[in-house]
Amino acid sequence: MDMLFKNITAVTMNPEAPILRNINLGIQGRKITYIEDAGTTTPPPAAKRTIDGTNKVLMPGLYNCHTHAAMTLFRGYANDRTLEDWLFNYIFPAEQKLTPKLIHTGTMLAIAEMISSGTIAFTDMYSFMDQVAAAAHEAGVLANVSNAVIGFDKDSYDFYKDNVYIQTENTLAQYHNKNDGRIKAEASIHGVYTSYAPAWAQVTDYAAKHDLGLHVHLSETATEHNNCISIYNMTPAQVFHKHGVFDLPCIAAHGVWVTDDDIKILAEKGVCIAHNPLSNLKLASGLAPVEKMRKGGVNVALGTDGMASNNSHDLFEEMKMASLLQKYATNDPTAAPAMSVLEMATINGAKSQGRAYESGMLKVGYDADMLMIDFDNPRQTACYDPILNLAYSTTGRDVEMTICRGQVLYEKGDYKTIDIEKLLYDAKQAVKVFES
Amino acid sequence: MDMLFKNITAVTMNPEAPILRNINLGIQGRKITYIEDAGTTTPPPAAKRTIDGTNKVLMPGLYNCHTHAAMTLFRGYANDRTLEDWLFNYIFPAEQKLTPKLIHTGTMLAIAEMISSGTIAFTDMYSFMDQVAAAAHEAGVLANVSNAVIGFDKDSYDFYKDNVYIQTENTLAQYHNKNDGRIKAEASIHGVYTSYAPAWAQVTDYAAKHDLGLHVHLSETATEHNNCISIYNMTPAQVFHKHGVFDLPCIAAHGVWVTDDDIKILAEKGVCIAHNPLSNLKLASGLAPVEKMRKGGVNVALGTDGMASNNSHDLFEEMKMASLLQKYATNDPTAAPAMSVLEMATINGAKSQGRAYESGMLKVGYDADMLMIDFDNPRQTACYDPILNLAYSTTGRDVEMTICRGQVLYEKGDYKTIDIEKLLYDAKQAVKVFES
Repeated sequence: MDMLFKNITAVTMNPEAPILRNINLGIQGRKITYIEDAGTTTPPPAAKRTIDGTNKVLMPGLYNCHTHAAMTLFRGYANDRTLEDWLFNYIFPAEQKLTPKLIHTGTMLAIAEMISSGTIAFTDMYSFMDQVAAAAHEAGVLANVSNAVIGFDKDSYDFYKDNVYIQTENTLAQYHNKNDGRIKAEASIHGVYTSYAPAWAQVTDYAAKHDLGLHVHLSETATEHNNCISIYNMTPAQVFHKHGVFDLPCIAAHGVWVTDDDIKILAEKGVCIAHNPLSNLKLASGLAPVEKMRKGGVNVALGTDGMASNNSHDLFEEMKMASLLQKYATNDPTAAPAMSVLEMATINGAKSQGRAYESGMLKVGYDADMLMIDFDNPRQTACYDPILNLAYSTTGRDVEMTICRGQVLYEKGDYKTIDIEKLLYDAKQAVKVFES
Repeated sequence: MDMLFKNITAVTMNPEAPILRNINLGIQGRKITYIEDAGTTTPPPAAKRTIDGTNKVLMPGLYNCHTHAAMTLFRGYANDRTLEDWLFNYIFPAEQKLTPKLIHTGTMLAIAEMISSGTIAFTDMYSFMDQVAAAAHEAGVLANVSNAVIGFDKDSYDFYKDNVYIQTENTLAQYHNKNDGRIKAEASIHGVYTSYAPAWAQVTDYAAKHDLGLHVHLSETATEHNNCISIYNMTPAQVFHKHGVFDLPCIAAHGVWVTDDDIKILAEKGVCIAHNPLSNLKLASGLAPVEKMRKGGVNVALGTDGMASNNSHDLFEEMKMASLLQKYATNDPTAAPAMSVLEMATINGAKSQGRAYESGMLKVGYDADMLMIDFDNPRQTACYDPILNLAYSTTGRDVEMTICRGQVLYEKGDYKTIDIEKLLYDAKQAVKVFES
C-alpha cells in the first residue's frame, strides 16, 4: 500500500456511510483500496507512508465547475466599477494582450491556489485551451477545458470558430483521454447573447461528432435573460433546449435568472448548473434560485468564476455562502443544509465532469481524490458534527494535504508539482504587462 | 526602537496617506514611533527586532464589534434548524450549563481564533463579563465587555439586574481603565423585545453614573421589529431614542430592519451599528441597509456575532461579504467599495469602542495595533492594488503576525499569550458538557 491514514475521521459523501469515525484508509496507486474500522483486531496492511489521522478529517477533493482560470492574472484588476466600465475599458483591452504563455502562467497560478485549498478539479472556459490543458496536466489535477465560441454574425463566428477548433483539436490530440482521462476537452458556446443562431447547432454538432461535453453561460444577468426573451420570445434555457444544445452533457454557468419552467428543462435534460455565488454578488448579477433547482432535481455544482470578479478560488467560501444565501433568500434557516453544499462541491461536481463513477466520494475502488483537514486548532474547536464544521467553519486555510489520484499535490505549504517561486515570479512579471 | 518593519507596504487607513509603499515603520513600547520612506538616505534607527517587509503588507488591527465570544463553545451546535427549535431546544438549555470557567475557556478560544486572523479588539455582550474581561486581559487584546440585561417584568429584571451589576462592578474594579484602558466595561440592554420599559432608563442611568457606553441589539429580525411597532407604535430605534438610551455612546448590533427615519436618528445621535452579515444570513434574519446607513452618516462597524450562527471569527470574511452583499442588494457593483469595508473593520470599529484617537490607523503616535499580511503566495497574486486584495482576496490565512499595543500576540501559527494546547484540551472537555 502506498499511503495509509490511521485513526482518521472521514466525511465520505457516500450516502450509505456519510461519516466514518476512527478508520484506517489506504491508497494504492490512484485508488482507495482499503477502509476499515481502526478498532478492528486485524492490523492494517503495511504502507510506504503512514499518516496519523488523529484530529484530522478526510473528505473528497473539491470540484470548481466554472472558471476562467487564466484570469487569475486579473485578480483585483479595476474592481468596484460598473460592469460596462470594467469590461470594455479594462478587461477586454487586457485580454487582447494575453498570449499562450500568459494563459499558461495564469492557469498555473489558479491551480496553485486551488490545490492549496483542497480543489482537485476544475471546469474551464477561456482561450488557448491547450495551454490550460498543459498546465492542468503538469500540475496533476483533473480538468475539463474549453474555448468559448463567440460570434455575433457569420464572419466573426467563422473567424472565431476556426481558431477554437484548432485549439480543441490540439487538446484532443495531446491531452483528451490521455493520462487516464485526467484532462477532457469540451466544446463551448459562450452564451446565447454572444453568438448567433447557426453557431449553436454547429458547435453542438462538432461536440457530438467528437463525443465532447458542452460548457455555456446561462442567464447570468437580468439584462442578458430579458434581452433574450425580447429577441427570441424564449428564455436562454429554452433557446438552447430548442437548438439541441442540451441533448449533449452540458454544464451551464450561473442560471441566476432561470424560471420555474427553465428548471424543469434543466432537470429533464440533465443539464448541470455551476453556481457562482460570490461572483454573482460582486458583479451585482443576482442570486440564483439554488434551492428551487436542487429540489427540482437539477445537479447543482459550484464555481468561483474568474478572479477579476470574486477574487478567491477557495471553494469553502463558495460552499458556506451558497448555503447562507439560500437561507436568506428563502427566509428559512433550514434551507441548503450543510450536507447539500458539501455535495455541490464534491459528488455533484464529479457528476458534472462525467467522473461520478470514480471520483467525488471516499469509497473503496474510487480514485484517491481527497483532502485532509486539520481539526486541532481554534477555528475548528468546538466541533459537534464535522459536516457542520466543514460547511460553515472550514476555509482553505485548514487544508493540510490535497491528493489527486493518489498523488500528493499540496502538503502544508509545499506545492509538490509546481515550481511555486518561478510561478510567482512569472505572474508578477505578467502583472507589469497589464499595468502598462 | 523595539521593532522595525523594513521595506514594507502599509495600508494605513489614514485618509491623508492611505497607501504607503516601501516604507520603514518602527514601534517603541505601545506606539508607532517612526514611519519613513525606505528610499531616504537617512538610515532608520536601530531596533531590537527587524523584520523584512518585502512582499508584506501592514494594516491596522481589526475590530470585531459584536460578539458573544464564549459561544465559541457552541460552534456548529445544532445548526440548520429553525430559530425557535435552535434557541429553545438547544442554545438556551446549553447556556444553562455555562459556568464562569466555561465562559473563560470559550472566550479564550474566540480570542485565539481572532488573533490568528488579525483581530485585536472585540465588543462582547454575554454573561460573566468579568471572566470575559479576564480572558481579554490575559491574551492582551482590547475589549469592551458587557453583561446583557434581560427582564420582561419587574421581578425578572430585578433578579437579573442585580447579578449583572455585580459582574459589572467586579469588572470596573479589576479591569476597567486598568492596564492603560485595554478593557472597558459597558452596560447592556439585550434588546427592546427582551426587556420592559423601566429597565431601559435604569440601565441607562446606571451607565451614565459609571460613565459607561451601552451595547444593545436592534431590529435584528422582522418579527422583533414589527412586534415592537405593534406594542409601542414605534420602531426599536425610536423606543431607545425616546428613553434616552442613545444619549450615551452606544453600539447597536444588526440594524437589519431599520427604517430611513431610524437611520436619521442613528446618525444624529452618533449610534454605531455593528453589522453582522454572515450571522444575519445564516439565521435568515435579512440584510441590513448598510449602504444607506453609511451614506446617511452612521458609523458602521463589523461583527461576527456568536459562533453558533456564523461559524467563524475571520473578519476578512465579514469584510468581503459586507461589500458583495451591498453590491447585490443595491444592484450596483460600485457600491460598498473595498475601502469602505476596510474602514468598517478598522477605524469605524475603533470609533465604536471610543479608541479612534489612538487606534485604527497606522500613524506616528498611534498605538501599534496592526497585522502583517503575506502577499507572496498564489492567493495574493496578482495584486494591482493592495486595498482591493485586502477586501476581496485576503483571509485570516494570510495573516502572519498580529500585534496589539506593540505586543506580538500571534505569529505564523504561534500564540504568544495563550497556552493553545491547554486551551484546545479544555475546550474539547467543555464540548462533552454540552453533548451530554
